[in-house]
Amino acid sequence: MGHPYAPAELELPGYVPLQLSQGEILVSYLGASLFVLLAVWLVSGRCGRLSKIDRMLMCWWAFTGLTHIMIEGPFVFTPNFFKKENPNFFDEVWKEYSKGDSRYVARDTATVTVEGITAVLEGPASLLAVYAIASRKSFSHILQFTICLGQLYGCLVYFITAYLDGFNFWVSPFYFWAYFIGANSFWIWIPMLITIRSWKKICAAFQTEKVKTK
Amino acid sequence: MGHPYAPAELELPGYVPLQLSQGEILVSYLGASLFVLLAVWLVSGRCGRLSKIDRMLMCWWAFTGLTHIMIEGPFVFTPNFFKKENPNFFDEVWKEYSKGDSRYVARDTATVTVEGITAVLEGPASLLAVYAIASRKSFSHILQFTICLGQLYGCLVYFITAYLDGFNFWVSPFYFWAYFIGANSFWIWIPMLITIRSWKKICAAFQTEKVKTK
Repeated sequence: MGHPYAPAELELPGYVPLQLSQGEILVSYLGASLFVLLAVWLVSGRCGRLSKIDRMLMCWWAFTGLTHIMIEGPFVFTPNFFKKENPNFFDEVWKEYSKGDSRYVARDTATVTVEGITAVLEGPASLLAVYAIASRKSFSHILQFTICLGQLYGCLVYFITAYLDGFNFWVSPFYFWAYFIGANSFWIWIPMLITIRSWKKICAAFQTEKVKTK
Repeated sequence: MGHPYAPAELELPGYVPLQLSQGEILVSYLGASLFVLLAVWLVSGRCGRLSKIDRMLMCWWAFTGLTHIMIEGPFVFTPNFFKKENPNFFDEVWKEYSKGDSRYVARDTATVTVEGITAVLEGPASLLAVYAIASRKSFSHILQFTICLGQLYGCLVYFITAYLDGFNFWVSPFYFWAYFIGANSFWIWIPMLITIRSWKKICAAFQTEKVKTK
Protein backbone atom coordinates (compact mmCIF):
# COMPACT_ATOMS: atom_id res chain seq x y z
CA MET A 1 0.00 0.00 0.00
CA GLY A 2 2.65 2.60 1.02
CA HIS A 3 0.28 5.51 1.83
CA PRO A 4 -2.34 6.21 4.49
CA TYR A 5 -5.13 7.37 2.14
CA ALA A 6 -8.43 5.91 0.95
CA PRO A 7 -9.36 4.15 -1.24
CA ALA A 8 -6.58 1.59 -0.69
CA GLU A 9 -6.22 0.87 -4.43
CA LEU A 10 -5.04 4.45 -5.04
CA GLU A 11 -1.50 4.34 -6.46
CA LEU A 12 0.96 6.99 -5.25
CA PRO A 13 4.46 5.98 -6.42
CA GLY A 14 7.16 7.89 -4.58
CA TYR A 15 4.94 8.97 -1.67
CA VAL A 16 6.98 10.43 1.22
CA PRO A 17 5.29 9.91 4.63
CA LEU A 18 4.07 12.85 6.71
CA GLN A 19 6.71 14.29 9.00
CA LEU A 20 4.62 16.83 10.96
CA SER A 21 1.88 15.71 13.34
CA GLN A 22 -1.76 16.75 12.97
CA GLY A 23 -1.31 18.93 16.07
CA GLU A 24 1.74 20.76 14.69
CA ILE A 25 -0.05 21.50 11.40
CA LEU A 26 -3.31 22.62 13.00
CA VAL A 27 -1.67 24.78 15.68
CA SER A 28 0.53 26.53 13.08
CA TYR A 29 -2.36 27.22 10.71
CA LEU A 30 -4.82 28.28 13.41
CA GLY A 31 -2.13 30.32 15.20
CA ALA A 32 -1.18 32.20 12.04
CA SER A 33 -4.85 32.71 11.22
CA LEU A 34 -5.63 34.09 14.67
CA PHE A 35 -2.67 36.46 14.31
CA VAL A 36 -4.06 37.75 10.98
CA LEU A 37 -7.59 38.13 12.37
CA LEU A 38 -6.35 40.01 15.44
CA ALA A 39 -4.00 42.26 13.45
CA VAL A 40 -6.70 43.26 10.97
CA TRP A 41 -9.20 43.81 13.80
CA LEU A 42 -6.80 46.13 15.65
CA VAL A 43 -5.61 48.04 12.58
CA SER A 44 -9.17 48.46 11.23
CA GLY A 45 -10.21 49.96 14.57
CA ARG A 46 -7.82 52.84 13.99
CA CYS A 47 -8.78 53.75 10.42
CA GLY A 48 -11.94 55.87 10.19
CA ARG A 49 -15.35 55.11 11.66
CA LEU A 50 -15.87 51.57 10.36
CA SER A 51 -18.79 49.59 11.77
CA LYS A 52 -18.04 46.41 13.73
CA ILE A 53 -19.57 44.32 10.93
CA ASP A 54 -17.27 45.95 8.36
CA ARG A 55 -14.27 45.31 10.61
CA MET A 56 -15.29 41.65 11.02
CA LEU A 57 -15.70 41.38 7.25
CA MET A 58 -12.20 42.82 6.75
CA CYS A 59 -10.83 40.15 9.13
CA TRP A 60 -12.64 37.40 7.18
CA TRP A 61 -11.47 38.67 3.77
CA ALA A 62 -7.86 38.96 4.95
CA PHE A 63 -7.97 35.44 6.43
CA THR A 64 -9.70 33.81 3.44
CA GLY A 65 -7.57 35.72 0.91
CA LEU A 66 -4.33 34.62 2.55
CA THR A 67 -5.63 31.05 2.86
CA HIS A 68 -6.52 30.99 -0.86
CA ILE A 69 -3.14 32.40 -1.91
CA MET A 70 -0.72 30.91 0.61
CA ILE A 71 -2.32 27.52 1.38
CA GLU A 72 -4.32 26.65 -1.75
CA GLY A 73 -1.90 28.36 -4.17
CA PRO A 74 1.07 26.07 -3.37
CA PHE A 75 -1.17 22.99 -3.81
CA VAL A 76 -2.21 24.10 -7.30
CA PHE A 77 1.32 24.81 -8.49
CA THR A 78 3.13 21.88 -6.77
CA PRO A 79 1.83 18.72 -8.49
CA ASN A 80 4.56 16.59 -6.86
CA PHE A 81 4.04 17.84 -3.30
CA PHE A 82 3.51 14.34 -1.89
CA LYS A 83 6.80 13.03 -3.33
CA LYS A 84 9.15 15.79 -2.11
CA GLU A 85 12.12 14.52 -0.12
CA ASN A 86 12.25 17.75 1.89
CA PRO A 87 8.60 18.76 2.16
CA ASN A 88 7.78 22.24 3.38
CA PHE A 89 4.89 23.18 5.67
CA PHE A 90 2.42 23.59 2.77
CA ASP A 91 3.24 20.16 1.33
CA GLU A 92 2.59 18.69 4.76
CA VAL A 93 -0.75 20.54 5.07
CA TRP A 94 -2.05 18.86 1.91
CA LYS A 95 -0.70 15.44 2.83
CA GLU A 96 -2.60 15.79 6.12
CA TYR A 97 -5.80 17.18 4.52
CA SER A 98 -5.78 14.36 1.96
CA LYS A 99 -6.76 12.01 4.79
CA GLY A 100 -10.15 13.69 4.51
CA ASP A 101 -10.11 13.85 0.68
CA SER A 102 -7.54 11.81 -1.21
CA ARG A 103 -8.45 13.57 -4.45
CA TYR A 104 -5.87 16.19 -3.43
CA VAL A 105 -3.00 13.76 -3.32
CA ALA A 106 -4.42 11.94 -6.38
CA ARG A 107 -4.56 15.27 -8.24
CA ASP A 108 -8.19 14.92 -9.33
CA THR A 109 -8.94 17.26 -12.22
CA ALA A 110 -12.07 18.93 -10.82
CA THR A 111 -10.39 19.50 -7.43
CA VAL A 112 -7.28 21.06 -9.00
CA THR A 113 -9.50 23.23 -11.24
CA VAL A 114 -11.61 24.59 -8.39
CA GLU A 115 -8.50 25.19 -6.24
CA GLY A 116 -6.82 26.94 -9.19
CA ILE A 117 -9.72 29.34 -9.72
CA THR A 118 -9.88 29.93 -5.95
CA ALA A 119 -6.16 30.62 -5.54
CA VAL A 120 -5.62 32.73 -8.66
CA LEU A 121 -8.86 34.74 -8.87
CA GLU A 122 -10.58 34.67 -5.48
CA GLY A 123 -7.42 35.02 -3.38
CA PRO A 124 -6.28 38.40 -4.73
CA ALA A 125 -9.92 39.54 -5.01
CA SER A 126 -10.40 38.83 -1.28
CA LEU A 127 -7.45 41.05 -0.38
CA LEU A 128 -8.90 43.73 -2.66
CA ALA A 129 -12.13 43.43 -0.63
CA VAL A 130 -10.22 44.31 2.57
CA TYR A 131 -9.07 47.51 0.90
CA ALA A 132 -12.50 48.21 -0.66
CA ILE A 133 -14.28 47.98 2.70
CA ALA A 134 -11.64 50.12 4.48
CA SER A 135 -11.88 52.86 1.86
CA ARG A 136 -15.68 52.56 1.43
CA LYS A 137 -15.50 52.04 -2.33
CA SER A 138 -18.82 51.96 -4.16
CA PHE A 139 -17.83 48.54 -5.60
CA SER A 140 -17.32 47.07 -2.13
CA HIS A 141 -20.61 45.13 -1.94
CA ILE A 142 -20.61 43.83 -5.50
CA LEU A 143 -16.98 42.70 -5.11
CA GLN A 144 -17.74 40.79 -1.90
CA PHE A 145 -20.84 39.32 -3.56
CA THR A 146 -18.77 38.18 -6.56
CA ILE A 147 -16.12 36.42 -4.46
CA CYS A 148 -18.77 34.73 -2.30
CA LEU A 149 -20.57 33.38 -5.36
CA GLY A 150 -17.24 32.02 -6.61
CA GLN A 151 -16.60 30.32 -3.26
CA LEU A 152 -20.11 28.86 -3.19
CA TYR A 153 -19.94 27.64 -6.82
CA GLY A 154 -16.53 26.11 -6.03
CA CYS A 155 -17.94 24.26 -3.00
CA LEU A 156 -20.88 22.99 -5.10
CA VAL A 157 -18.49 21.59 -7.73
CA TYR A 158 -16.24 20.19 -4.99
CA PHE A 159 -19.02 18.30 -3.21
CA ILE A 160 -21.00 17.19 -6.27
CA THR A 161 -17.91 15.77 -8.04
CA ALA A 162 -16.98 13.91 -4.81
CA TYR A 163 -20.49 12.42 -4.75
CA LEU A 164 -20.47 11.43 -8.44
CA ASP A 165 -16.99 9.89 -8.16
CA GLY A 166 -17.90 7.47 -5.40
CA PHE A 167 -17.78 9.42 -2.12
CA ASN A 168 -15.03 7.19 -0.67
CA PHE A 169 -12.02 9.49 -0.33
CA TRP A 170 -11.62 9.63 3.47
CA VAL A 171 -9.70 7.44 5.85
CA SER A 172 -12.43 7.33 8.50
CA PRO A 173 -15.65 9.08 9.55
CA PHE A 174 -13.53 11.36 11.75
CA TYR A 175 -11.65 12.77 8.74
CA PHE A 176 -14.87 12.93 6.73
CA TRP A 177 -16.54 15.12 9.34
CA ALA A 178 -13.52 17.10 10.53
CA TYR A 179 -11.78 17.82 7.20
CA PHE A 180 -14.14 17.17 4.27
CA ILE A 181 -17.26 18.63 5.90
CA GLY A 182 -15.99 20.64 8.90
CA ALA A 183 -13.11 22.60 7.38
CA ASN A 184 -15.05 23.36 4.19
CA SER A 185 -18.25 24.37 5.96
CA PHE A 186 -16.79 27.79 6.80
CA TRP A 187 -16.64 28.51 3.06
CA ILE A 188 -20.34 27.72 2.79
CA TRP A 189 -22.07 29.44 5.67
CA ILE A 190 -19.92 32.58 5.80
CA PRO A 191 -20.19 33.31 2.04
CA MET A 192 -23.92 32.57 2.27
CA LEU A 193 -24.38 35.15 5.04
CA ILE A 194 -22.32 37.74 3.14
CA THR A 195 -24.19 36.99 -0.11
CA ILE A 196 -27.56 37.56 1.56
CA ARG A 197 -26.32 40.78 3.19
CA SER A 198 -24.85 42.16 -0.04
CA TRP A 199 -27.94 41.18 -2.07
CA LYS A 200 -30.13 43.13 0.39
CA LYS A 201 -27.81 46.17 0.40
CA ILE A 202 -27.74 46.22 -3.41
CA CYS A 203 -31.53 45.96 -3.72
CA ALA A 204 -31.88 48.72 -1.11
CA ALA A 205 -29.51 50.94 -3.10
CA PHE A 206 -31.68 50.50 -6.20
CA GLN A 207 -34.79 51.37 -4.23
CA THR A 208 -33.14 54.53 -2.91
CA GLU A 209 -32.13 55.38 -6.49
CA LYS A 210 -35.71 54.84 -7.67
CA VAL A 211 -37.13 57.11 -4.97
CA LYS A 212 -34.48 59.74 -5.68
CA THR A 213 -34.96 59.85 -9.44
CA LYS A 214 -38.76 59.96 -9.19
CA MET B 1 -14.40 0.99 -32.29
CA GLY B 2 -18.22 1.23 -32.66
CA HIS B 3 -18.55 5.00 -32.09
CA PRO B 4 -17.49 8.14 -33.94
CA TYR B 5 -15.89 9.96 -30.97
CA ALA B 6 -12.36 10.80 -29.90
CA PRO B 7 -10.17 9.50 -28.34
CA ALA B 8 -10.56 6.15 -30.15
CA GLU B 9 -9.81 4.15 -26.99
CA LEU B 10 -12.99 5.49 -25.35
CA GLU B 11 -15.30 2.54 -24.57
CA LEU B 12 -19.04 3.03 -25.10
CA PRO B 13 -20.72 -0.38 -24.86
CA GLY B 14 -24.26 -0.30 -26.29
CA TYR B 15 -23.75 2.89 -28.29
CA VAL B 16 -26.63 3.49 -30.74
CA PRO B 17 -25.53 5.47 -33.84
CA LEU B 18 -26.91 8.93 -34.57
CA GLN B 19 -30.12 8.90 -36.59
CA LEU B 20 -30.58 12.64 -37.21
CA SER B 21 -28.19 14.59 -39.42
CA GLN B 22 -26.19 17.59 -38.21
CA GLY B 23 -28.43 19.79 -40.37
CA GLU B 24 -31.67 18.44 -38.88
CA ILE B 25 -30.42 18.99 -35.33
CA LEU B 26 -29.02 22.47 -35.96
CA VAL B 27 -32.04 23.70 -37.92
CA SER B 28 -34.45 22.47 -35.22
CA TYR B 29 -32.47 24.05 -32.36
CA LEU B 30 -31.77 27.33 -34.17
CA GLY B 31 -35.35 27.48 -35.49
CA ALA B 32 -36.88 26.97 -32.05
CA SER B 33 -34.42 29.48 -30.57
CA LEU B 34 -35.27 32.10 -33.19
CA PHE B 35 -38.96 31.55 -32.45
CA VAL B 36 -38.35 32.16 -28.72
CA LEU B 37 -36.24 35.26 -29.38
CA LEU B 38 -38.84 36.71 -31.76
CA ALA B 39 -41.78 35.90 -29.46
CA VAL B 40 -40.13 37.53 -26.41
CA TRP B 41 -39.09 40.55 -28.49
CA LEU B 42 -42.65 41.09 -29.75
CA VAL B 43 -44.38 40.48 -26.40
CA SER B 44 -41.89 42.66 -24.50
CA GLY B 45 -42.61 45.51 -26.92
CA ARG B 46 -46.19 45.57 -25.71
CA CYS B 47 -45.60 45.57 -21.94
CA GLY B 48 -44.70 48.99 -20.56
CA ARG B 49 -41.93 51.30 -21.72
CA LEU B 50 -38.99 48.90 -21.66
CA SER B 51 -35.74 50.06 -23.25
CA LYS B 52 -34.42 48.18 -26.29
CA ILE B 53 -31.51 46.84 -24.20
CA ASP B 54 -33.91 45.48 -21.58
CA ARG B 55 -35.98 43.82 -24.30
CA MET B 56 -32.83 42.27 -25.82
CA LEU B 57 -31.81 41.05 -22.37
CA MET B 58 -35.25 39.47 -21.90
CA CYS B 59 -34.78 37.63 -25.22
CA TRP B 60 -31.36 36.37 -24.12
CA TRP B 61 -32.57 35.22 -20.69
CA ALA B 62 -35.56 33.40 -22.19
CA PHE B 63 -33.31 31.71 -24.76
CA THR B 64 -30.53 30.76 -22.32
CA GLY B 65 -33.00 29.68 -19.60
CA LEU B 66 -34.86 27.37 -21.97
CA THR B 67 -31.55 26.01 -23.32
CA HIS B 68 -30.34 25.27 -19.77
CA ILE B 69 -33.60 23.57 -18.77
CA MET B 70 -34.71 21.83 -21.98
CA ILE B 71 -31.37 20.97 -23.64
CA GLU B 72 -28.89 20.65 -20.75
CA GLY B 73 -31.46 19.29 -18.26
CA PRO B 74 -32.18 16.08 -20.22
CA PHE B 75 -28.43 15.43 -20.57
CA VAL B 76 -27.92 15.63 -16.80
CA PHE B 77 -30.80 13.30 -15.96
CA THR B 78 -30.38 10.78 -18.82
CA PRO B 79 -27.07 8.98 -18.15
CA ASN B 80 -27.85 6.32 -20.77
CA PHE B 81 -28.81 8.74 -23.56
CA PHE B 82 -26.29 7.29 -26.03
CA LYS B 83 -27.60 3.73 -25.62
CA LYS B 84 -31.32 4.37 -26.10
CA GLU B 85 -32.92 2.24 -28.81
CA ASN B 86 -35.47 4.95 -29.57
CA PRO B 87 -33.53 8.16 -28.94
CA ASN B 88 -35.45 11.42 -28.76
CA PHE B 89 -34.31 14.77 -30.13
CA PHE B 90 -32.38 15.69 -26.96
CA ASP B 91 -30.45 12.40 -26.93
CA GLU B 92 -29.49 13.08 -30.54
CA VAL B 93 -28.35 16.63 -29.71
CA TRP B 94 -25.82 15.33 -27.19
CA LYS B 95 -24.64 12.50 -29.42
CA GLU B 96 -23.96 15.14 -32.06
CA TYR B 97 -22.35 17.66 -29.66
CA SER B 98 -20.09 14.89 -28.26
CA LYS B 99 -18.20 14.99 -31.58
CA GLY B 100 -16.84 18.28 -30.24
CA ASP B 101 -16.42 17.03 -26.64
CA SER B 102 -16.64 13.31 -25.97
CA ARG B 103 -16.72 13.94 -22.21
CA TYR B 104 -20.49 14.29 -22.63
CA VAL B 105 -20.97 10.79 -23.98
CA ALA B 106 -18.27 9.50 -21.57
CA ARG B 107 -20.14 11.12 -18.66
CA ASP B 108 -17.11 12.96 -17.28
CA THR B 109 -17.74 13.98 -13.67
CA ALA B 110 -16.80 17.65 -13.95
CA THR B 111 -18.88 18.08 -17.13
CA VAL B 112 -21.96 16.47 -15.57
CA THR B 113 -21.49 18.60 -12.43
CA VAL B 114 -21.28 21.89 -14.30
CA GLU B 115 -24.24 20.94 -16.51
CA GLY B 116 -26.22 19.93 -13.42
CA ILE B 117 -25.66 23.27 -11.68
CA THR B 118 -26.47 25.06 -14.94
CA ALA B 119 -29.69 23.17 -15.62
CA VAL B 120 -31.06 23.09 -12.06
CA LEU B 121 -30.03 26.52 -10.71
CA GLU B 122 -29.21 28.80 -13.63
CA GLY B 123 -32.04 27.63 -15.89
CA PRO B 124 -34.95 28.59 -13.63
CA ALA B 125 -33.05 31.70 -12.47
CA SER B 126 -32.74 32.85 -16.11
CA LEU B 127 -36.50 32.62 -16.58
CA LEU B 128 -36.94 34.56 -13.34
CA ALA B 129 -34.67 37.24 -14.85
CA VAL B 130 -37.10 37.64 -17.79
CA TYR B 131 -39.86 38.38 -15.28
CA ALA B 132 -37.63 40.59 -13.11
CA ILE B 133 -36.67 42.81 -16.06
CA ALA B 134 -40.25 43.05 -17.33
CA SER B 135 -41.55 44.10 -13.91
CA ARG B 136 -38.53 46.31 -13.08
CA LYS B 137 -37.76 44.54 -9.82
CA SER B 138 -35.03 46.08 -7.66
CA PHE B 139 -33.25 42.70 -7.67
CA SER B 140 -33.14 42.58 -11.47
CA HIS B 141 -29.47 43.60 -11.86
CA ILE B 142 -28.09 41.53 -9.00
CA LEU B 143 -30.04 38.48 -10.27
CA GLN B 144 -28.64 38.85 -13.81
CA PHE B 145 -25.17 39.40 -12.34
CA THR B 146 -25.48 36.22 -10.24
CA ILE B 147 -26.52 34.03 -13.17
CA CYS B 148 -23.76 35.46 -15.40
CA LEU B 149 -21.10 34.72 -12.78
CA GLY B 150 -22.43 31.17 -12.57
CA GLN B 151 -22.24 30.79 -16.34
CA LEU B 152 -18.70 32.22 -16.42
CA TYR B 153 -17.50 30.04 -13.52
CA GLY B 154 -19.06 27.03 -15.26
CA CYS B 155 -17.22 27.83 -18.51
CA LEU B 156 -13.94 28.23 -16.60
CA VAL B 157 -14.36 24.80 -14.97
CA TYR B 158 -15.44 23.33 -18.33
CA PHE B 159 -12.39 24.58 -20.25
CA ILE B 160 -9.77 24.12 -17.50
CA THR B 161 -10.82 20.50 -16.80
CA ALA B 162 -10.70 19.79 -20.57
CA TYR B 163 -7.16 21.19 -20.66
CA LEU B 164 -5.97 19.26 -17.58
CA ASP B 165 -7.51 16.00 -18.85
CA GLY B 166 -5.60 16.01 -22.14
CA PHE B 167 -7.49 18.34 -24.50
CA ASN B 168 -8.18 15.55 -27.01
CA PHE B 169 -11.96 15.14 -26.96
CA TRP B 170 -12.89 16.28 -30.48
CA VAL B 171 -13.16 14.38 -33.72
CA SER B 172 -11.49 17.06 -35.85
CA PRO B 173 -10.46 20.73 -35.75
CA PHE B 174 -13.85 21.58 -37.29
CA TYR B 175 -15.73 20.18 -34.28
CA PHE B 176 -13.22 21.73 -31.89
CA TRP B 177 -13.84 25.21 -33.32
CA ALA B 178 -17.54 24.88 -34.15
CA TYR B 179 -18.81 23.03 -31.07
CA PHE B 180 -16.25 23.16 -28.23
CA ILE B 181 -15.19 26.77 -28.82
CA GLY B 182 -17.89 28.29 -31.07
CA ALA B 183 -21.08 27.11 -29.38
CA ASN B 184 -19.73 27.79 -25.88
CA SER B 185 -18.33 31.22 -26.72
CA PHE B 186 -21.82 32.76 -26.53
CA TRP B 187 -21.90 31.83 -22.83
CA ILE B 188 -18.64 33.71 -22.32
CA TRP B 189 -18.94 37.00 -24.16
CA ILE B 190 -22.64 37.64 -23.48
CA PRO B 191 -22.38 36.99 -19.70
CA MET B 192 -19.21 39.11 -19.65
CA LEU B 193 -21.01 42.06 -21.26
CA ILE B 194 -23.98 41.70 -18.88
CA THR B 195 -21.66 41.34 -15.87
CA ILE B 196 -19.83 44.56 -16.73
CA ARG B 197 -23.12 46.39 -17.31
CA SER B 198 -24.67 45.19 -14.03
CA TRP B 199 -21.48 45.93 -12.07
CA LYS B 200 -21.55 49.52 -13.34
CA LYS B 201 -25.29 49.94 -12.62
CA ILE B 202 -24.83 48.60 -9.09
CA CYS B 203 -21.86 50.88 -8.35
CA ALA B 204 -23.83 53.82 -9.75
CA ALA B 205 -26.77 52.98 -7.47
CA PHE B 206 -24.45 53.08 -4.43
CA GLN B 207 -23.07 56.43 -5.51
CA THR B 208 -26.59 57.84 -5.87
CA GLU B 209 -27.38 56.48 -2.39
CA LYS B 210 -24.24 58.12 -0.98
CA VAL B 211 -25.14 61.49 -2.49
CA LYS B 212 -28.73 61.19 -1.28
CA THR B 213 -27.89 60.22 2.30
CA LYS B 214 -25.25 62.95 2.65
